[in-house]
Amino acid sequence: MLARLPLLAVLAAPLAAQMVTSEATTPSLAEQLVTRALDDNRAHALLADLIAHAPKRLAGTPGMHAANAWALQAMREIGLENVRLEPVTVPHWIRGEVERLVVDGPGGEATHPITALGGSVATPVGGLCAEVLMVRSFEELQERAAEAKGKIVFFNRAMPRVLRNTFHGYRDAVPQRGTGAIEAAKVGGIAAIVRSVTTAIDDHPHTGAMRYEEGVAKVPAVAISTRGAEALAARLAAGEAVKVTVEVDCAMGEPVVGGNVVGEIVGSSHQDEIVVFGAHLDGWDTGVGAHDDGAGCVHCLEAARLLVVQGYKPARTLRIVLFANEENGLDGARAYPEAHADELAHHVAALETDNGGFEPQGFGAGIDAARRDALALHLAPLRDLGMGALIEGGGGADIGPLRAHGVPLFSLLVANHRYFDYHHSALDRLDAVNERELAMGGAALAFFATILTDPAKWSR
Amino acid sequence: MLARLPLLAVLAAPLAAQMVTSEATTPSLAEQLVTRALDDNRAHALLADLIAHAPKRLAGTPGMHAANAWALQAMREIGLENVRLEPVTVPHWIRGEVERLVVDGPGGEATHPITALGGSVATPVGGLCAEVLMVRSFEELQERAAEAKGKIVFFNRAMPRVLRNTFHGYRDAVPQRGTGAIEAAKVGGIAAIVRSVTTAIDDHPHTGAMRYEEGVAKVPAVAISTRGAEALAARLAAGEAVKVTVEVDCAMGEPVVGGNVVGEIVGSSHQDEIVVFGAHLDGWDTGVGAHDDGAGCVHCLEAARLLVVQGYKPARTLRIVLFANEENGLDGARAYPEAHADELAHHVAALETDNGGFEPQGFGAGIDAARRDALALHLAPLRDLGMGALIEGGGGADIGPLRAHGVPLFSLLVANHRYFDYHHSALDRLDAVNERELAMGGAALAFFATILTDPAKWSR
Repeated sequence: MLARLPLLAVLAAPLAAQMVTSEATTPSLAEQLVTRALDDNRAHALLADLIAHAPKRLAGTPGMHAANAWALQAMREIGLENVRLEPVTVPHWIRGEVERLVVDGPGGEATHPITALGGSVATPVGGLCAEVLMVRSFEELQERAAEAKGKIVFFNRAMPRVLRNTFHGYRDAVPQRGTGAIEAAKVGGIAAIVRSVTTAIDDHPHTGAMRYEEGVAKVPAVAISTRGAEALAARLAAGEAVKVTVEVDCAMGEPVVGGNVVGEIVGSSHQDEIVVFGAHLDGWDTGVGAHDDGAGCVHCLEAARLLVVQGYKPARTLRIVLFANEENGLDGARAYPEAHADELAHHVAALETDNGGFEPQGFGAGIDAARRDALALHLAPLRDLGMGALIEGGGGADIGPLRAHGVPLFSLLVANHRYFDYHHSALDRLDAVNERELAMGGAALAFFATILTDPAKWSR
Repeated sequence: MLARLPLLAVLAAPLAAQMVTSEATTPSLAEQLVTRALDDNRAHALLADLIAHAPKRLAGTPGMHAANAWALQAMREIGLENVRLEPVTVPHWIRGEVERLVVDGPGGEATHPITALGGSVATPVGGLCAEVLMVRSFEELQERAAEAKGKIVFFNRAMPRVLRNTFHGYRDAVPQRGTGAIEAAKVGGIAAIVRSVTTAIDDHPHTGAMRYEEGVAKVPAVAISTRGAEALAARLAAGEAVKVTVEVDCAMGEPVVGGNVVGEIVGSSHQDEIVVFGAHLDGWDTGVGAHDDGAGCVHCLEAARLLVVQGYKPARTLRIVLFANEENGLDGARAYPEAHADELAHHVAALETDNGGFEPQGFGAGIDAARRDALALHLAPLRDLGMGALIEGGGGADIGPLRAHGVPLFSLLVANHRYFDYHHSALDRLDAVNERELAMGGAALAFFATILTDPAKWSR
């Protein structure tokens, strides 16, 4: 883009194209919140502060405690009330020091980046060395079950790039990560190597939760980078007799007491009616959880801060909940309704933000079409700013259990093309989050809070 | 975001929130184009190829010729017809080797990153050393004109971050870059230092075009990084008696013949009616012009490629024009209507894409509201995909001169929060462009081409 010089005014049309939404003479509350968020520019600094204090926040680790302490302090500094840690016992999976994968064959020896999957058992010291059975689906594994015995099963299902919504692609490919080790063991496999769940082709393995099944042997499970997966697949497809050595030394430690970090803006007239805004404070240790879900935590905190500095006092209570251990067990999600059983009937809404710190687009709403239409009317000022869409289906892993108690669930929707490039990998760094986009997400949530906490605009 | 394991299906609401726009049983043409763009995944590879062949493409340089050769070849490989270079004479400004700024005073000596502005004259060898007059506006400079004589004028107007649309903020701050040297010289200043036009605070100076005025002394003009600007401002604000040395050795060479690179899909039934899709092939040499405007070139080429591989034959002629020297003189923009004077009455539309390779959102349209509403009906399939907005005001620096000939002007609108972080700086790199977002932009343009080239859907 060129300098827009007076001389060239006649040519300056690209600016005109971007100048449609002019500043109104009386800015709406939504506009005021956006302006304040951009002007204060606090969101990204808050995220940087979280990451400086607790770059690694996996459940059970010292970083978890550091993050909890940070969040309690951050809530107090914003001016939230009833700030507390609600105890939650979480597992402590320990990644260990060794993550090694070597492919050897007539074509030579090659090392590819891997990461242990969360919850995996270790290999023997020195690693497991075996032939590889490559499959692209559980169905293919069933068909070729007879070939699997004693082998390492390589789940090479690529996250489909053709799906416009990357969450659809993720859903397609992620089961191999979650239950690949179970399926491998059932057919006699001795380990599972899973292609990282991302459409990007690079050298960064993406971790994530996996699980075992009662009565099925526990075999180690790792994720290989997509480039590593393609290289290994090419050798196998060429018929090369390769053997793979995989070694990880992860282990399960003793459970640890952590907690959900909670703070509130107590309602002015309907304080017993509660709106929960949630995100998860834990994050995978491959990166620093900047998008997943540091951004979500900051969205919630920034939304509350904006309301406080704006002097907006909600009628209902807005409760911020930063959940414990979403990634590796959902303990905080289960603990919350147990701890608040007597209040659940008065929870009028719960929203989760766990899709990254990208440009906000609107909200998912787990309510019927008629209620959605009614609610959409109140979102018009946000829609005017390009981030007030209200579409079907809302919720989140942490607030999911509230659905069974009749709580209407919502989620913040953001641009999602980049999310899985970073997700659960070393690329989920602070510099992958744009300060303006993050601030806008906080402003969008703040405005939505003014609607959900208003008995005249929303009821359960 | 957690693994979506079968066990946790009840909790998997965030996915539901993202699953609203399901794949229809009969995909629309817009959906087909998007699917193909994502599946082929050619756009980013094409951009990488351009940058590999011509990382620096400033007008008049060898890189300009390399880019022209690349673009001609790329058009031929896509299968465009009438591929040619239409000669354009462009200036050849030479950056030189020295770009140095040193602040010295009682507080010590500090060096800050600068870049010469495009078109600037050199300083004497060894640099200019003088006191600094800091201003935030031309008005302030006028008020303090008496203080300017013999000084270096430091234009420290920050690009306002509060404006939601970053192009508005850019417009506010960029005049100091374009005409700062003129204004400085008019009041006796000996050089202009301009704060880089970005809301990011970092160490990367952002270059851009500047100009001189007949009869006003030509003084050197440079951009300083925002962090450097803040450091210098802090010392001046503290009343420290600092002197600044600035040295650049840029120079103006002889004009060079380059050209606009043109290729077409010739219309099937209305081939004399022309729709121009344009971008500019040149780029600033601080980075590699990945967003500005390599992305726009790829948008146009990818749109054409998608139509070709889709087997879509437009009724009218779609003409891709990759313009020469947008950044430092707009020579290609002026040359095009001169070279096509006899055809201009048959140009039914011209579109420019020069806002970066981010997620597409829709189009700006320089037409009246009634025509916009009529056109919007045809954009519904793209709107269903979240990128079919049609808003007031369209055009671009390269196609701007066509307005005077009555050609309706359009522009591709994309998410713009990140654009000025990279713009005209070393950060405008290939890895700042997301392959999915870039591909989506190409698909959006391809679909819009099917509307504009259809006499039943659009007329001048």
